Parts: sequence; structure tokens; C-alpha cells
Amino acid sequence: MKMRMESDSIGNMEVPVEAYYGIQSLRASRNFNITKKPLHKDFIISLAEIKKAAAITNRDAELLTPTIANAIVNACEEIISGKFHDQFIVDPIQGGAGTSANMNANEVIANRAIELLGEKKGSYNIIHPNDHVNMAQSTNDVFPTAGKLTVLKMLPKTISELQRLYNALKLKSLEFNNVIKMGRTQLQDAVPIRLGQSFNAFASMIKRDVDRLKSVEKEMLILNIGGTAIGTSINVCPEYLTNITPNLKKVCGFDVVQSKDLIDATQNLDCFVAVSGILKTCAVNLSKMANDLRLLSSGPKTGFGEINLPSMQNGSSIMPGKINPVILEVVSQVAFNIIGNDFTITMAAEAGQLELNAFEPVLFHNLFESIETLENATTTLIDNCILGITANEDRCKELLNSSVGIVTALCPYIGYKKSADIAKTSLKNGTSIKELVLNEGILTSSELDAILDPFSMTDIDCFSDSKSAQTINKAI
Amino acid sequence: MKMRMESDSIGNMEVPVEAYYGIQSLRASRNFNITKKPLHKDFIISLAEIKKAAAITNRDAELLTPTIANAIVNACEEIISGKFHDQFIVDPIQGGAGTSANMNANEVIANRAIELLGEKKGSYNIIHPNDHVNMAQSTNDVFPTAGKLTVLKMLPKTISELQRLYNALKLKSLEFNNVIKMGRTQLQDAVPIRLGQSFNAFASMIKRDVDRLKSVEKEMLILNIGGTAIGTSINVCPEYLTNITPNLKKVCGFDVVQSKDLIDATQNLDCFVAVSGILKTCAVNLSKMANDLRLLSSGPKTGFGEINLPSMQNGSSIMPGKINPVILEVVSQVAFNIIGNDFTITMAAEAGQLELNAFEPVLFHNLFESIETLENATTTLIDNCILGITANEDRCKELLNSSVGIVTALCPYIGYKKSADIAKTSLKNGTSIKELVLNEGILTSSELDAILDPFSMTDIDCFSDSKSAQTINKAI
Amino acid sequence: MKMRMESDSIGNMEVPVEAYYGIQSLRASRNFNITKKPLHKDFIISLAEIKKAAAITNRDAELLTPTIANAIVNACEEIISGKFHDQFIVDPIQGGAGTSANMNANEVIANRAIELLGEKKGSYNIIHPNDHVNMAQSTNDVFPTAGKLTVLKMLPKTISELQRLYNALKLKSLEFNNVIKMGRTQLQDAVPIRLGQSFNAFASMIKRDVDRLKSVEKEMLILNIGGTAIGTSINVCPEYLTNITPNLKKVCGFDVVQSKDLIDATQNLDCFVAVSGILKTCAVNLSKMANDLRLLSSGPKTGFGEINLPSMQNGSSIMPGKINPVILEVVSQVAFNIIGNDFTITMAAEAGQLELNAFEPVLFHNLFESIETLENATTTLIDNCILGITANEDRCKELLNSSVGIVTALCPYIGYKKSADIAKTSLKNGTSIKELVLNEGILTSSELDAILDPFSMTDIDCFSDSKSAQTINKAI
Amino acid sequence: MKMRMESDSIGNMEVPVEAYYGIQSLRASRNFNITKKPLHKDFIISLAEIKKAAAITNRDAELLTPTIANAIVNACEEIISGKFHDQFIVDPIQGGAGTSANMNANEVIANRAIELLGEKKGSYNIIHPNDHVNMAQSTNDVFPTAGKLTVLKMLPKTISELQRLYNALKLKSLEFNNVIKMGRTQLQDAVPIRLGQSFNAFASMIKRDVDRLKSVEKEMLILNIGGTAIGTSINVCPEYLTNITPNLKKVCGFDVVQSKDLIDATQNLDCFVAVSGILKTCAVNLSKMANDLRLLSSGPKTGFGEINLPSMQNGSSIMPGKINPVILEVVSQVAFNIIGNDFTITMAAEAGQLELNAFEPVLFHNLFESIETLENATTTLIDNCILGITANEDRCKELLNSSVGIVTALCPYIGYKKSADIAKTSLKNGTSIKELVLNEGILTSSELDAILDPFSMTDIDCFSDSKSAQTINKAI
Repeated sequence: MKMRMESDSIGNMEVPVEAYYGIQSLRASRNFNITKKPLHKDFIISLAEIKKAAAITNRDAELLTPTIANAIVNACEEIISGKFHDQFIVDPIQGGAGTSANMNANEVIANRAIELLGEKKGSYNIIHPNDHVNMAQSTNDVFPTAGKLTVLKMLPKTISELQRLYNALKLKSLEFNNVIKMGRTQLQDAVPIRLGQSFNAFASMIKRDVDRLKSVEKEMLILNIGGTAIGTSINVCPEYLTNITPNLKKVCGFDVVQSKDLIDATQNLDCFVAVSGILKTCAVNLSKMANDLRLLSSGPKTGFGEINLPSMQNGSSIMPGKINPVILEVVSQVAFNIIGNDFTITMAAEAGQLELNAFEPVLFHNLFESIETLENATTTLIDNCILGITANEDRCKELLNSSVGIVTALCPYIGYKKSADIAKTSLKNGTSIKELVLNEGILTSSELDAILDPFSMTDIDCFSDSKSAQTINKAI
Repeated sequence: MKMRMESDSIGNMEVPVEAYYGIQSLRASRNFNITKKPLHKDFIISLAEIKKAAAITNRDAELLTPTIANAIVNACEEIISGKFHDQFIVDPIQGGAGTSANMNANEVIANRAIELLGEKKGSYNIIHPNDHVNMAQSTNDVFPTAGKLTVLKMLPKTISELQRLYNALKLKSLEFNNVIKMGRTQLQDAVPIRLGQSFNAFASMIKRDVDRLKSVEKEMLILNIGGTAIGTSINVCPEYLTNITPNLKKVCGFDVVQSKDLIDATQNLDCFVAVSGILKTCAVNLSKMANDLRLLSSGPKTGFGEINLPSMQNGSSIMPGKINPVILEVVSQVAFNIIGNDFTITMAAEAGQLELNAFEPVLFHNLFESIETLENATTTLIDNCILGITANEDRCKELLNSSVGIVTALCPYIGYKKSADIAKTSLKNGTSIKELVLNEGILTSSELDAILDPFSMTDIDCFSDSKSAQTINKAI
Repeated sequence: MKMRMESDSIGNMEVPVEAYYGIQSLRASRNFNITKKPLHKDFIISLAEIKKAAAITNRDAELLTPTIANAIVNACEEIISGKFHDQFIVDPIQGGAGTSANMNANEVIANRAIELLGEKKGSYNIIHPNDHVNMAQSTNDVFPTAGKLTVLKMLPKTISELQRLYNALKLKSLEFNNVIKMGRTQLQDAVPIRLGQSFNAFASMIKRDVDRLKSVEKEMLILNIGGTAIGTSINVCPEYLTNITPNLKKVCGFDVVQSKDLIDATQNLDCFVAVSGILKTCAVNLSKMANDLRLLSSGPKTGFGEINLPSMQNGSSIMPGKINPVILEVVSQVAFNIIGNDFTITMAAEAGQLELNAFEPVLFHNLFESIETLENATTTLIDNCILGITANEDRCKELLNSSVGIVTALCPYIGYKKSADIAKTSLKNGTSIKELVLNEGILTSSELDAILDPFSMTDIDCFSDSKSAQTINKAI
Repeated sequence: MKMRMESDSIGNMEVPVEAYYGIQSLRASRNFNITKKPLHKDFIISLAEIKKAAAITNRDAELLTPTIANAIVNACEEIISGKFHDQFIVDPIQGGAGTSANMNANEVIANRAIELLGEKKGSYNIIHPNDHVNMAQSTNDVFPTAGKLTVLKMLPKTISELQRLYNALKLKSLEFNNVIKMGRTQLQDAVPIRLGQSFNAFASMIKRDVDRLKSVEKEMLILNIGGTAIGTSINVCPEYLTNITPNLKKVCGFDVVQSKDLIDATQNLDCFVAVSGILKTCAVNLSKMANDLRLLSSGPKTGFGEINLPSMQNGSSIMPGKINPVILEVVSQVAFNIIGNDFTITMAAEAGQLELNAFEPVLFHNLFESIETLENATTTLIDNCILGITANEDRCKELLNSSVGIVTALCPYIGYKKSADIAKTSLKNGTSIKELVLNEGILTSSELDAILDPFSMTDIDCFSDSKSAQTINKAI
């Protein structure tokens, strides 16, 4: 391989002559050989967007010549369009608070811009990674800003899938509105519920997740770009400080604003902890729902068997005909992983010291994974599970009728103690609740029919905010 | 000890004749001998508030006679005022989804109400714990509602202390606005900062915690009372369902509302996970700040020594004269505990099954501890640490002058590479940055004085939202 | 209240004249008003044991006069016997790395020893908390040593309860050895299993917990007492350094040894993380088993209903006759709490800096709670749940017969694909597996009876290490 | 792309004609599009080793013809040698308890074996993925067994790197044995220590990690292969049950044994929790050490500055000449990630239900990542940081002399109170400790020189188990 020689404060090093990255990227790739995975593509794009906005701002402030600035802008646009991503060779888990990722971007952009100007890669006298591409910037404002832009790119897709999940659950709640079944508390027979009400409760829960995520997403709009090294905006001229965020807003398309306290915004990562905490809350809900659906579909013969999940794949390599709740299982696993990631994110944020938190790389790595896997899990949950669920109406009715939970409805008429005695007797000798109460001579048969009607026991309107099935259907 | 005989579905049992609790509380206290600690007093009061509101509502709906209802109301008011708390004998970590705590309240209230009517404790034919005190209620709506009321009682005190911490930090940021010092990133000399800016950054951070807690607190206002067993409002008449929440609002004084989906509100605990997640985020910030202050006050001779903490107690049993950052250390420990609690809360919420989450007791136990210890730690942090911090101005200046970090300000004039060479030379042979640049003949002495002035390097306005010290002082 | 004046490096302060604690305890109790709970009694006793051993060692080294030393020893013995525990007024979560707890012990012991010598409390010229009681010690060796002694006191009781749980599970596995039922994987019908095998699997699992705890307990035997401030044994004479650990061994009765690297043993808390990690592993197992038993006992009519739990208390305040798995629920909650504690312990250990970890207090507070609640939960699990479990043999058989899982046994004879077709057909139209295979004419009726016999499908010997029921019974 | 048609219980599907994987892998890859990363290569190899051992065992039991068995064995050996890994297309986080990964292996091996027999891929009548490759196996014994074999492959490399780290630290402890410096507790000046003692303490700590990992690794040797679906060994002949583990031992080279309770070994994953708990403990230690080394190397001018780290890369994109502790920062981040992974692993293990834990895939994914990143972080820690650390002897001495911590050594001579007064005076007016004590006339100048000699204060032998530097050097 043909090599070119580059140098930095540490010394000299050969870099492949074809490489757009330079000596600093190469050193970093050797220092941090940890996950052996690449930076997230949205993160690379976000870095390029920042570099583009900075070049424009510096050009307008007459700190960069139009020639150099435009070359940098063009190089950035190529990266934004997906090119040269293989030239980002540093590990996502890296020391140096992201300096290596930032310098990797600076070097790739510098070399590509040099090339666009018709010169040879490595000719940093023409365009220098630090002096030109990184002008008026520090890793310490670029890196967290890129992290926020990345979340802003990824999170809406996740929210949108959760909204779609909400719609799917609402649709099912309408479909199952007349399926009466036994409710269970602490896994013990309780009182009747409609299957539609169960799905509506899932929908209500997911709605909160959507709302919380939309709300916490706003924390990502407050940027520290312009603060440079520690938020005091050293090496930044007033014009740049004023214009960089508006310019970045134009480049990335998000309603970003500059933090009112750039020093705080540089050193504190609690906004990411807040986002992760809400993702974790959503993970808790998804796992709870997945667990419920596994319980309701357990069987087919030795379990609850109240609903059927769509068959997505053979369930077993040894047990023929077995169909397993595989989609729900992957949802729970993604939830567990997001919860674990939340702890890593928490520790990383807590470990920040003084003017900087050096542990952003692992925080971002985990946060991006949480957002992305949450989206992917939700997609397969909707399309390969929820929409295909059917109810076993007969089984629901059969179980309901076999249980004594409807005795609860008698309490207002015959008291808790008497009701308890009747429940015990019924469970023991199999006589129906109705018959036992009739024998007591307190209530008539028609009164009992009214009191013990499971449909009337579940007759509250939880669908007030429901659109029709047809409207929802189109949204999924 | 004289005993009275009581009975329940399990059988008979003797209860001390003086006891206000009954057989169900006693069984539970034996089944759950776990932490050997009492229920939180605000939780006991919240239970009594719910029972009072329910009695009023049932009386107005003519389901309870005024005599019985008023006796119950009076008994509840005594508990609200702090009486009979020693009669709550069940462990805060209990099985049964809180049934034991609810029944403990029902039994104590029933017996006290019976007594107020001039009868002997245990005369449940007069007032029955289930049929009268628990009328139209289930543990499954009472217990989570009591949990939310408890948080609503406790959280404002914590928020108020955090607001006071914000004020204290703002005050200090004004006091230290002219103390120039070296900033550190990754614990390495970076560029100048003012000590006031550091404290202002802490204040900005705590402000977000206050805002987030105020925002998430609203989730606690949405109640499932009236949903009874599983949210279908079984055994509840329309009048009760309409009036219980407004009546409870009058009793407890919070702007509580009824959930639009009582089934969801009964089974899903994500709102508590959200609250805990925000508490955890605040814990992260407090621990980060505590760690920073420990670093800045490290020494007195072999550390950074830039600030002095007030001496609160002897530091060592063996090392005379040693003063340690004990308040900051307790703050970090409380933070670690809150973070651990968050995971217990997460697991408890995730483990909910179908129509109920049976793991609320441990969730509440941890949540209450998090809120309360956060308040207590913040109080001691303000009064025994922050307000007494003084700056070592001379030390700050000495360290700043000894370092080469101001070289960064030269980059726009002489480039990154040249600046790096100068920094290295200065560090190596001790010649000052200014002298080295002068030797290069690029910049004049007066130009250099302007460029290298640390005050101008830190001259951004981060105090725009500051009130004067005098105004703040009054608020602490 | 009558007061006496005391002084320390910070200044003067009044202390109640009757108090055995002194100024340093009082300051600390005001600085750390966090949990408002007392130190663990075993921890107080452990502190006294160390002080006693130190006094003996110092006396033998002729550094303390017999009069003073013996007074200290006598005071310590009173504390060990349970006296004066109310004089320990400092919060378990405290700053200062435990200095306050250590000084609280020093002050109480000094004042009690002074009193035993016939003098007035506060006469520190006679016996001084630091110079005499704390002689040759530092909080930094006393506090972690006391933590280890406390674990050594508590853990054997927990292990013993787990051993008793193992025995109870073994007993049940023998009792249920002939109860054939359907196994479930992923909550779907799988292949037959015996109920006894399920309980035996629980027992095997708990056996590992017992073994792991016994093994990790040994880490607690390695002490840093004698290392004083940072492990360099400053202010310790060779005789003391040699004898303190053997003397402590005699006092506390555990096979403790001195660490070979006292500096390491002073600053690193990984041994406690290891203990907590094993407790957490046990918590995982207990919660998994609790969850399984809740599933198996779900119903009675709308769940699995294969086993019955003993009825321990009324299940519901609204649903008469309901019996809930309350003991299992408290076990899971304790498990969640232990898991959360593990993360607090992890963070506390990770936060240690240089020659000391200042976060031991919160670590110990959580660790002691984990060990103790694990013991308490296990006790109620055995006595109020496991031993009273009965099998629903008929229900087990009925479910087994209704399912098609036995088709798996046909794979070796007719292949996976054909078996899957038969399973599907049977599930669809209800024809039995046997009949369907007979129709194929591949196997005879008697061959099928042999192949499809569920007992032979489960005929592996997992009881090889079992003692007889009678032998086990005595051990519980 | 040319396609072939395949079918399973769900229906028909086209598979690329060149693909070694089949319909079940393809379905799974669509159902679980979560992380978009491949299975770990050691896991693929482990699956192939199991399949090879099973084929040999089935052949010897005359259940497979030699032709088929040998074709399977040959196909497995190709995979073991690294071929066809790109044919494993299923996501590591998958539902179905690993069935998809197992079937992916079965399909690839079947098709390759078919090809080796000269037939076309997809000719499952010749060699069937389930009936032949998966013969006598279930995902439920294959998947956890493959997980254990993978850990057995990976962990020794991690342990070996930790052992190398231990050696490096020992080497440094010898090198720095004569560097006297101030010890710090709670970041405050304490008493003297030698730099070599600090490194020796790190070494002692890492030694425990090595020992714990070696010990817990043994848990991985106990396998459930042969238990098939739920541990009852359904569809397994006695000969297979006896021989599969010994044959697997020969194939994989580890001292694996069959669990005595295959049912337990199939459903409980606590052994993996134990491994992860020990990895987490090691992560705690590494992060603590990394944090210490960052503190000691903080500066160069405004920090402790007692040691120098090797310069590995430019520290900043804006601050010239800045060198950061990048290797230590990546170590801490890896530690945070391992700690977060531990929580995911804990939740996954806790979530197991009845006869199987369906959440093994996410558990393995996290566990493998923890082991591998721990190895990688340790490697860069040794080679790019520890071995290059140098001491700033002059700085150490200067700080030591400026502090008053040596006053502690006076306690035995003049008491704690007097010593405290002297320390305070010295700190206040700068007079040396020695001079102040001389003024008191209690001790002579030569006595004081002996008492206050920092070397004698640190003169304990913590190097008793040290080999010479030369011997260690070779081992690194």
C-alpha cells in the first residue's frame, strides 16, 4: 500500500495515500480498538452538518476565504449524502471526549476539500483540519451538538412507530370491545373485563410514552455550539457566536437554539439522562404489555389461551407444531437492553468532571442503540404481532363462566362476609353463584341476572377519545 | 394482655383488646416481617384522606348513614392529624399489592369510629372495615391513589429545597464573578474560566431539575380512585364515580383529576417510573456537582485548593486537623442510593401483570425514600456547605499563571500547529507564552496583552437572568 | 435538659449531661439528617468488638495502662451485650467515610469507661475518645473492618435459611415425584414433566446460591485493621500490628486474617461488590421461582391451577373469597430491592478515590439491608408458602391430556415434518395424537402407548443426591 | 437472483438458490431486524462444535448413517475453520429463545453437507436440518450450551490480559518503590505513601479479579446438552445421553461435564449472572484505578501532576499542546458499559419462566460484549498507558513537604488534640511542623527527624510476593 507521511504533536506516522482520514484518526483507531463497530451514520452526518454550518458562518464572517469555505461545504454535503462514511475509522467507544471522532471528521473533510480543489490529500497547508475545518470550534461543542442532532434525527422515527403502535392497539380495542372475559389481578381470578378494554389500556399507556418522548425531545434542541472549549467561547468572534446556531438550524432543519448558559451546556449531560429515562419508561411499558400478551396467548391447551398471536416462524427445532410468541420475546429483550443502557448512560453522565464530561462517547453509543432498537422492536411488534392478534371468544366465555369472581358484584347487596362464604362454597362444590344466592332467598332470579351480568359490570366508557376503526386503520 | 377474638376467611385469631388494628393487619404483620420499618407517615395520612373522601361521597349518595359516615370521617381526621399511626403495623414491603396496608387503615378507622360511637372495638356489626370503611373501594384504586397523594405531599418540599439550592448557587456565582481561574477538561489544564461561571453552571443545571420535577409532578394528579378492583368500577354507583375525585380534591387540597382510562391507570405504573427517572437525573447532577466541589477544594496543600468548604466536623479520628468534604460525600451517597432505587422501581413497574401491578409496595417504599433523602441531602448541602464556600483567589491566580492553557487564544493568530509548539516549549523550559511569541516577532507586546488577558477570554454574559445578590439572599 | 460543654477542632458545643455520645457525634447527627434511621445493631456490636480487641492489644503492648484498657474493655462488652445502642445517634448514610460512626463509638465507650472508673462523663483527660479508645486505629481501618464483621454475623443466618429452603424444596420434589404434568417453554405447551422435577430444579438452583454465598463469604475474613489511615500502619507499633487481628479473632469468633496488602485492603471495596453480586444472583433465582409458583398456582379457575398455595390472608378488600400469592409477591419485591441495592453498592465502590473510599456508609447500609431482607423473605417463603403447597393432580393430568405436546416423542419414528402435521391436525379438529398416527398405519397401538407414555418421557433420575423425605423433614 | 422454494409449518417462501441458510433463517431475519449486527463468531463456531459432536454421537449410536454423519461433521469443521459465517443471517437479539440461531446453524450445515454429498442445496430429503443435523437436540439444550462454550473461548483471553495487567502494575510498583509522596483520603492531604505502594495496591486488586474470574469460569463447564426440550431428555437414547458431553469435550477441548440436574440447567441462567457479576466487579476496579490515575496525572500545572501518562494522541482540536488521559477514559467507559450490561443480564435471567428462559439471546449478546470489550480495554490500558507511566519525583516531594499530614505521626507522642492545634497553626502561618513542635520543647530535633521521616512512615513490606522486575518484564 502506498503511504503518505503525516505528523502531529506526538510525532510522524504513515497514512495510506488513498485515505481521507489522517494521522489523528489513525492513532485513535489504534488506541481504541474496543467495539470494532463504526460510528452511527446519523452521527457522521450530524458532524458534517456542523462543519458545513461552521464553514458558512466563518466565510460570512470573512474568516475563511470563499474558496476554502466552499470546498469544505461541498465536502460536507458529500458526507451528508452518504459518501466517505467508510473513512470514519474511529471506534464509537473512545477516550478523549470525542476528539477523535471530531478530528476524523476534520481530516476527512479537509482531505476531500483539498481534493475538490485539485490538490493531493495531506496538503494541509491548503486546508488544515484544525485551522480551517475546525475553525471556531472545539470537540467540546461539536461533539455534544452532534449527539443532539443525531437524537433529533432518530427519535421522530421511534415516536412515529409508537404512534402507529397506539393506533394498532386502538384498532384492536374496538375489534375486541364485545369480547367479555375474566380479569386477573395477581394472576388470580378477579372480576370481568372486556378484551377491548385491555387493549385500550395498552393504548392509553403507549400514548403517554409518545407524549413524554415528544416533550423530552425538546431538550435536544438546546445546543452548546459556539461555546468551544469550555463554554466561554474562546476563539470565537461575536459574529460567529451569533450566527452559528441559526446557520446550523438551516443546515439540519431542526429548531435548534443556543443555550443561554454555554458553560453549563458544555459540561452537563443531564438532558441525555432525561431522554434515556423516558426511553426506559417506555421500555417498561412495552415489556409489561409483551408479558401480558404472552400470558393471554399462553397454551394453546395448558395456558390461558384467550388470544391467538399470528404464527411467524416454527417455534421449536424439536417440538413439532409449536408456535412461540417470538415477537413479544424480542420486544422484552430490547426493553431489558434499553434499561441496562440507561444505567450506563446514568453512570457516564454522573462521571463528568468540572468543565467537561469525557464520557460522552459511551453515552451516545448506548443512547443511539436504545432509540434505534426501540424503533425496530416496535415495528416488528405492530406488523408481525399486534395487527394479527385474534380473540378466542369461546375460551374467554368458558373461563369467565367457570370462575366465581362475579361474586364481587354481590357485596353491595349481601355484604363482603356473606359473599366470601358463597364464593368459597361455589369453588368447593361447584354450585353456581346464582343458585347459591337464590337459596338464601335474598334476591330474586331476575335481580341476580341483572347484578351478575358481566357485560354490565364492564360498562364504562373508555373509548370516548376513539376514532372509528376505519380512520385508525389508514394511519397504521 | 387481654385479647379479643376476630375472624376472617382464613379462620379465627386473637387480637389485643386495646388494638385498633384487627385480624387482617395482624396476619399481614406476621406474613411480612421484612424491613421491620413502619409505613411512611404521609402515606398513612393519604390513606385516611381517601377513606374520609369515600365516606363523604357514600354518605351523600345515601349509601352510608350519616351516623356511620360521620364517625368514619372523624376517625380519619384524627389519623390525618397524626394520631394512631402506631396502629399501622404492616411492613412497607408487603405482598398482596397493598391489601394489607389498605385493610390496616380500614380496621383502624372502623375500630376508632366504633369507639367514637361509644361501642367496643371489634364490633364490626356496627361499622365494618370492608362494607363501610372500604365501601365502593378496592385496594387496587386506594393504594396507588394513596401513593400519588404521598408523592404530592413530599415532592414540593424537595422541589422547594432545590429551588433554594439554585438561589444559593446563583448567590455564589455573583460573589465569585471576578475570581479568574484555570478551567480543566478531562482534569487537564484547559482555558480560563471565572469561578462565578462555574457556580452559575451548577445553578443552570439545578434549574432544569426544578423544572423537570415540577413538570413530572403533574403525572401524580391523575388518579384511578373509583376504578375499584380493575378499573371497571365494579360496585360503584354513578354518583360515587362522579363525586369521589372532587371530594378527595377538597380533602387533600391537590388538583387531582380522575383518569380517563381507569383500567390503564389501575394496572400501569409508568408514571412513577417517570418521576423516579427525573429524581435520578437530579441525583446525577447533584453527584456531579459534589464531585466537582470536592475536586476544587482538594488539598489544602496537595490538591487543587481553589475553594474552601466550611468546616463542619473533625475530619479524622487519627489525622489531627484534617477537615473533609463530609457534606458533599453524603450528597453523593444519597445520589447513589436514589439511582439504585430507580432500578428497583423500574423492575417493580416492569413486573406488573394483566389487570394489576402487585409490586407497588416496594416501588413506593423506594420512591418515598428517594424523594425524602433528596430533600434532606439538599438541605444540608445548602446550609452546611454551599453558603459557606469561600474562594482562594490567590491560589486560583497562581495556578492560572503557571499554566500554558492561554495559548489557545493564539490559534486564530498563529495557527494550531505553531501554538502547540509554543505550548510544548513553555511547558518544557518554563519560558512564558508571551515571551515565546514575542520572540517570534509576529505580535506586539500590547497585542499579546490583549489576546492573553484571561478576563477577556471569559467575558460572556451568563448572568443575564440573574437577580441581584440581595434579592436572592432573602430567598434562601 | 442539663448540658455539659465539649470542644473539638471546630469549636465548643453543649452536649446533654446524661449523654454517652459527645460533641463529634452530635455535630454529625446534625450534618447528616438523611434516613433518620439508626446504625445496624450488628454494626454497633462489631465496632465495640474492634475497640475491645484494640484495647487488649494496646494494653499488652504496654501502651495503655491496665486500668484504662480494662475500663474500655468493660464498656465495649456492655455494648456487645446490647446496652447503650440508643447512644449511637449518627445516620447510617453519612459523609466522612464513617468517621462519625467511629467517633460515636469512641465517645460512647470513653464516657462509659470513664463512668465505670467512677468519674463524670466528659472527663476526657481520664480516657480520651481519640487517644485511648481509638489508639492505633483510624476510621479507615476500623470502619471497613466493622463492615466485614457485620456481614460475617448476618450472612450465616441468611445462608442457613437458604439451606432450609433447599431442604423444603427437596421435600416437595419427593412428594410431587409422581405428579405428571405438561411442561411449558415460552409459556407454550411443550413436553411432559413431573411436578417433582420442577421442585427439584428449584432446589438445585438454590443449592448453587448456598454454595456461592459460602464461598464469597470468605472474602469478608480478610481485614485491614492495623493499616490505620491509609494502610501504611502509621502510628502502629509492630506488636500491635502483629496482634490486633489475632486478638480480634478471639473477640469476634471468626477466622479473620490480616490482608497481605493493607493499602489495597483500605482503599478497594470490590470484596463487597462481589458479595452483593452473589446476593443479587440469589435474588434473581428467588424471583424466578416466585414467578413460576405464581404461574402454576394462577386461577383457581382461569389460570394454570396446577398447584395450590396455602391461604395466608384475605386476598382482597373488595373481592370476597380471593386468595392471593402474597408471600411470593413479597419475595419478588425483596429481590427487586436487592437488585437495586446492588447498583448502589456498585456505584459506591466505583467512586472510591486514591487512598480511601469515602462512600462505604451507603454501601454498608444497602448491603446489610440486602442480607437481612433476603433472610426474612426466605423465612416467610419456606414457612408460609413452600411447605404448604399442594398439587392439583387431576388438573395437571387434565391439562396434559388435552395438549398435543407429546407429539414430540414421535419425531424419532415419523420425522419432524410429519409430526408437525399431526400436531396441527389434532389441535384443529380435536382428534387425539394416538388416533391420528394409528390412521397412518406406521405404528401399532401398543407401540404408540409405549412411545406416548408421559411417565416414560420424564424418566430421568434427577434425585440421585436426594436424602429421604424423613431425613429432610427434620432439617427444616 | 435465482431462488429455490422452501416450506415450513407457516407456509412456503423463496430462498436465494445460492444460500446455505433456509426458510427458517430467512423468516427469522425478517422478524428480528433489531441490532442489524451478526452473531458472534465464537458463538457460530460453538454451535458447529455441538452439531459435530452430536453427529458423531448419533453415528456411533447408529442413529445416523456414516455417510450422513460424516457429511455433517465435515460441514461443521468448515464452519469451525471460519467458513460460511456470512450465512448466519439472524440477529443476535432474537425471540424464540435462540431457535432461529439454532435453525440457522441446522440449515447451513444441512445444505453444506448436502452439497458435500454432491446434491443441490435444499434437498432436505437427503439431509434434513431438523431430523438429521438437529437429531437428539433441542434449541433449549444447544443454545445455552453454545453460550457457555463461547464464554469458555473468550474468557481466558480476558483473564490473560488481566494477568498481564497485574504484571505491568507490579513492575511499576517496583519502579516507583522509592518515590515518596502524600497520600490523600477524601481528596484531602493525609499521610505519606510511596508511589510504588499505590501501584502495588492496584496490582493486589487486579489479582483478585483474576482469581474470581478463574473461579467463576468453572460454572461454564456444566452443560445441559442432552436434556433436549426441557431437560427431561425426551427423544434421546441412553447411548447419546451418555456420550454427547464426552464427545463435545473432545471436539471443543474444554473440560465440560453434564449437569446432574438437566431440568435445572435448562431453565436457570444464574450461572451467567454470576459471571457477569464478577465481570462487573472487575469493571468497578478498573474504573476506580483509571480514575485514580487521571487524578494523579491531572495538570500538568493546575492538577496533582505526580505522574505522567504517555502521550498517545493530540488531546484537543482547539487547545494546542493539550494531552489527555484518553486511554484511561476509554477504560472507564468500557466499565460503565459492562455495568449496564450486567443489569440487562440480570433482568433477562430474572424473566425466565417455568421450563425455559426465552431471553438468553439478549443475555448472551451483552455478556459476550462485556467479556470482549473488557479484554480490549485491558490491552490498550497496559500497552498504551500503564507501561509508559513515569513519576514526577520532584513534584511528589514538593507537595509532600508543603503539607502538614505528617503531623499524624506525632499523635502517639503529644496526643491528638495538641497535634491538631499544631497542624492548624502550621497551615495558617506556614511555620513547619518540626519547628512548632521544637518550640514546645517536648521532643528534640533528632527525635523529630526520626518521627517525621516520611520513608519510615511508609515502611511496611507490601512486596513480599513480588518477583523481580526482570522476571515480570518478560511476562508482559
